[in-house]
Amino acid sequence: MTTQVTGSPKALVTQPSEREVRIERIFNAPRERVWKALTDPTLVAQWWGRGNKLVVERMDVQRGGHWRFVEHSPDGTHGFEGRYREVKPMERIEQTFEWDGTPGHVVVETMTLEDLGDGRTKLVNVSLFHTAEDLQGMVGAGMEQGLNQSYAALDKLLARPN
Amino acid sequence: MTTQVTGSPKALVTQPSEREVRIERIFNAPRERVWKALTDPTLVAQWWGRGNKLVVERMDVQRGGHWRFVEHSPDGTHGFEGRYREVKPMERIEQTFEWDGTPGHVVVETMTLEDLGDGRTKLVNVSLFHTAEDLQGMVGAGMEQGLNQSYAALDKLLARPN
Repeated sequence: MTTQVTGSPKALVTQPSEREVRIERIFNAPRERVWKALTDPTLVAQWWGRGNKLVVERMDVQRGGHWRFVEHSPDGTHGFEGRYREVKPMERIEQTFEWDGTPGHVVVETMTLEDLGDGRTKLVNVSLFHTAEDLQGMVGAGMEQGLNQSYAALDKLLARPN
Repeated sequence: MTTQVTGSPKALVTQPSEREVRIERIFNAPRERVWKALTDPTLVAQWWGRGNKLVVERMDVQRGGHWRFVEHSPDGTHGFEGRYREVKPMERIEQTFEWDGTPGHVVVETMTLEDLGDGRTKLVNVSLFHTAEDLQGMVGAGMEQGLNQSYAALDKLLARPN
């Protein structure tokens, strides 16, 4: 957690099994504020795209609800979508994730937020891929770099005055 | 394949691994006719619901396309949906499948059709569940019975004059 990327800490990324990637990242903001940045479509549009324009087409944050984001980057338009399996406000979101480029290759993501009690929040995200090959494909496509860019953009959003 | 259910053969169902269910079923119709019954929304609406009203809300049979069916049964309304991963006309469909009752619990189904050369067609479908628990849940929910009812309805459709 000491390497710096544009002033932001890198996420701690590990691989607990051949189908799982675990991500851990601390944010300098209270849990309620992090939760809101993760679940309010207007705020998500401001950081998820890592500086690229992001259109939140659907985002119904409740069990069974769908989400779909379209990122407009210099190299083209990229759609991402999924569905909420479970939502426990402030604490936990379990959802599916897929990229239009590999349709039907679905990842199950379980994200939890822990209040560290000092105005900081620990986010842990475990991605369970459908197959080991799906995991290799996503890691090879630069998953970790994209993630760190998104989290750096989220840091900036969280640092803004309320 | 000798046990009869309302005049139709039962599908041969096996479990190659703790995450996979394999289904094999022969239909008394040429492959082109079976393919059409599986991919034409108007025809699908006539057999998939096993006698219940089925509304085909989306069915874009091509790579990346979505499908969504809503079955109106005596015990309520059930939505099913997924996305096509790969479509090879007459031969193969790879798609995802999930039921609204367990949102985000996604199954990857690979269906192939084999022309048996005597006016019959063999359908093989392999379902790869995300976890062994997901498989147990679906099997426990009566997957095999529902499947045989759907295939019996498909037999009837295929037996109609062209």
